[in-house]
Amino acid sequence: METPLRGAAVIGQSGGPTVVINQSLVGYVEEAVQADAVTRVLGARHGVRGVLDDRFVDLGRESRETLEAVARTPAAALGSVRMKPTAEDVARMVEVFRRRDVRFFFYVGGNDTAETAHIVESQARELGWEMRCFHVPKTIDNDLRVTDHCPGYGSAARFVAHAFQGDDRDNRSLPGIKIDVVMGRHAGWLTAASTLGRRSVEDGPHLVYVPERVFDPEAFLAAVESVYREFGRCVVAVSEGIHDAEGKPFLQTYAERMGSVLAGQRDSHGNVQLSGTGALGDALARLVKEHLGDVRVRADTFGYLQRSFPADVSPVDAAEAREVGRAAVRAALSGEHASGSIALRRLEGPAYACETFVAPLSDVARVTKDLPEEFLDGEHDVSPAFRDYALPLVGEITPMADLEDVPA
Amino acid sequence: METPLRGAAVIGQSGGPTVVINQSLVGYVEEAVQADAVTRVLGARHGVRGVLDDRFVDLGRESRETLEAVARTPAAALGSVRMKPTAEDVARMVEVFRRRDVRFFFYVGGNDTAETAHIVESQARELGWEMRCFHVPKTIDNDLRVTDHCPGYGSAARFVAHAFQGDDRDNRSLPGIKIDVVMGRHAGWLTAASTLGRRSVEDGPHLVYVPERVFDPEAFLAAVESVYREFGRCVVAVSEGIHDAEGKPFLQTYAERMGSVLAGQRDSHGNVQLSGTGALGDALARLVKEHLGDVRVRADTFGYLQRSFPADVSPVDAAEAREVGRAAVRAALSGEHASGSIALRRLEGPAYACETFVAPLSDVARVTKDLPEEFLDGEHDVSPAFRDYALPLVGEITPMADLEDVPA
Repeated sequence: METPLRGAAVIGQSGGPTVVINQSLVGYVEEAVQADAVTRVLGARHGVRGVLDDRFVDLGRESRETLEAVARTPAAALGSVRMKPTAEDVARMVEVFRRRDVRFFFYVGGNDTAETAHIVESQARELGWEMRCFHVPKTIDNDLRVTDHCPGYGSAARFVAHAFQGDDRDNRSLPGIKIDVVMGRHAGWLTAASTLGRRSVEDGPHLVYVPERVFDPEAFLAAVESVYREFGRCVVAVSEGIHDAEGKPFLQTYAERMGSVLAGQRDSHGNVQLSGTGALGDALARLVKEHLGDVRVRADTFGYLQRSFPADVSPVDAAEAREVGRAAVRAALSGEHASGSIALRRLEGPAYACETFVAPLSDVARVTKDLPEEFLDGEHDVSPAFRDYALPLVGEITPMADLEDVPA
Repeated sequence: METPLRGAAVIGQSGGPTVVINQSLVGYVEEAVQADAVTRVLGARHGVRGVLDDRFVDLGRESRETLEAVARTPAAALGSVRMKPTAEDVARMVEVFRRRDVRFFFYVGGNDTAETAHIVESQARELGWEMRCFHVPKTIDNDLRVTDHCPGYGSAARFVAHAFQGDDRDNRSLPGIKIDVVMGRHAGWLTAASTLGRRSVEDGPHLVYVPERVFDPEAFLAAVESVYREFGRCVVAVSEGIHDAEGKPFLQTYAERMGSVLAGQRDSHGNVQLSGTGALGDALARLVKEHLGDVRVRADTFGYLQRSFPADVSPVDAAEAREVGRAAVRAALSGEHASGSIALRRLEGPAYACETFVAPLSDVARVTKDLPEEFLDGEHDVSPAFRDYALPLVGEITPMADLEDVPA
């Protein structure tokens, strides 16, 4: 047990947005405003950047109506940031926390964010300022360790499942090869969701390429050709993170070969820019055109729509995102942990249900979780076990319908 | 008045899919199955291609349940085609129609499709086979003449409005320059819909580039820089069809300058391939990066999602698409016209309402309708008049919400 603390609470939002990230923000406010130990309910503008700049919003003064409208609005309402604070940054943050009597810090984000929460808590302790620091999980990538799944994933997966349902109908209607690039740099969780609206082997995506497998361009072309010969068309789901046996992104290899002018930007966590460009899809489409000749080949890159489209939210995802925000406050006040990451555990039973628990930050920070082998099927598909896992997270998906097709 | 005819009816679907194109198919079936003059209710597989290949579906034998499920399914359930039949093709089509006693032909599509319906009707007449040929309007581009708007547009516009709402929040959350490429080769109707969820000048898109204006790269860069200096970020909506003063697509000019390997495919109507690639967005992003230096610049190309996403359909669009299918059958049976295109006329009054009427095919075929000057505002925005026109077509759009933002 830790000493019960009393003081102000701060929440920040970090990393790529999701459509339910503000549900967690509102869950935090709901729980914090009624806690005696919380003297002020604050939000930091643009995550740790706002703490460093002493830019805080008094969330305790937001109306119920505004909070509910914000909860339904995609992307960090407080503003987000991609920033790994240095030791000096953290020391300055602790100064700000001390001056404002902040004893509770909640940081909403992915594994990089969990790491930041971890560093802040331990540094504050060393500097003699006791705090509770909790990571509130959020990522469309679904690649956090320990937790069953991540808030934000269900809605992004729902969008991707619907996108492939529609695009598969489009491709049936005007047959050809269609390549759709899905977000997910290291793990194929979101790309795998492309299959959630499929009814049979005739439905696309017919091929699914995830970063958990080595991407072999020759095998890819052979597979596309084979599906095309069988169905007269082929829909392909490709993760933006496909790479060779050495882990080198396919797009980088291709760009070097073509002498292309790819920007190759990196963020402050050292990650290569694979989002916000159509280059990978276009490169794959060109390969297929070169290989198959006079066939209609198109590529789309779903891009930021996957994480920000406001009109297709998973209800279960929204509810769980709200709940992890509330659970983080309860965990911080309980005195049972100085720090932790809120995780979800799936309960046994016929109907889907999850409960929250606290995982050590060190188990969640930095590392990511790939699709396990049992969720993959061969070189370019996912398994029924993945479907069983993911379907409850996305909400109901209406099946597409064919004509009974009685020939005249 | 034309001679009343009796015989089989055929419907075909042509061109790019929409999410409500099957509503029109089902409207046709509903009306045709109860008409005494219609002996069989048929559908042609892949439009005129199916007629030429004598591939018909007996739509009169589809169950009510299947029809309703198909109506909610995006993209041509009969299959589509991009094909301009030659004089020989049309002669062969008339042979098939004569052999199958087809007296009513309905063709769902855009202006190319209206032209085909026109040719079939006049050729059949010359060949001594009297028929009624009606064009059923369908295009996300909204660029058909005569009609107030086109079925398919409302849902695509709804998707685009939502997409920009979400992407603007994403950009607020992680500020930078974001360029989103919207479909619409010749006309900016869909790109203009990017503005329908905006609440104020601070909301994106801050700049809207449509093909009705000459695209000047220098002016574009100056405008982006100006918005960026004012708001610290900039969201841009760009039509895929932006071009220079001579009408040459910007992407083509750029590709020539860069010595790029753009495919430059053309369909059988002679249109350059501007969809199904991320090249335009990437080119514009590169220009902005070169101009502004160390600024976060991203581009997304919304692609086929705009015409096929199944989970965000405009209710009014779905109902109107159903109605134009029904109206086409009524018009064909009325004996008032040998041919025509079903059009929508907006009624006066406080609440939005439309009625259908029959326009001559020659008024609709080939030509397209640009955004009128009163719907544009300066060089890179649309007017409130456009908003008044378009809002009733997309259904309700929930506003995005900001925190009240009381500083702490």
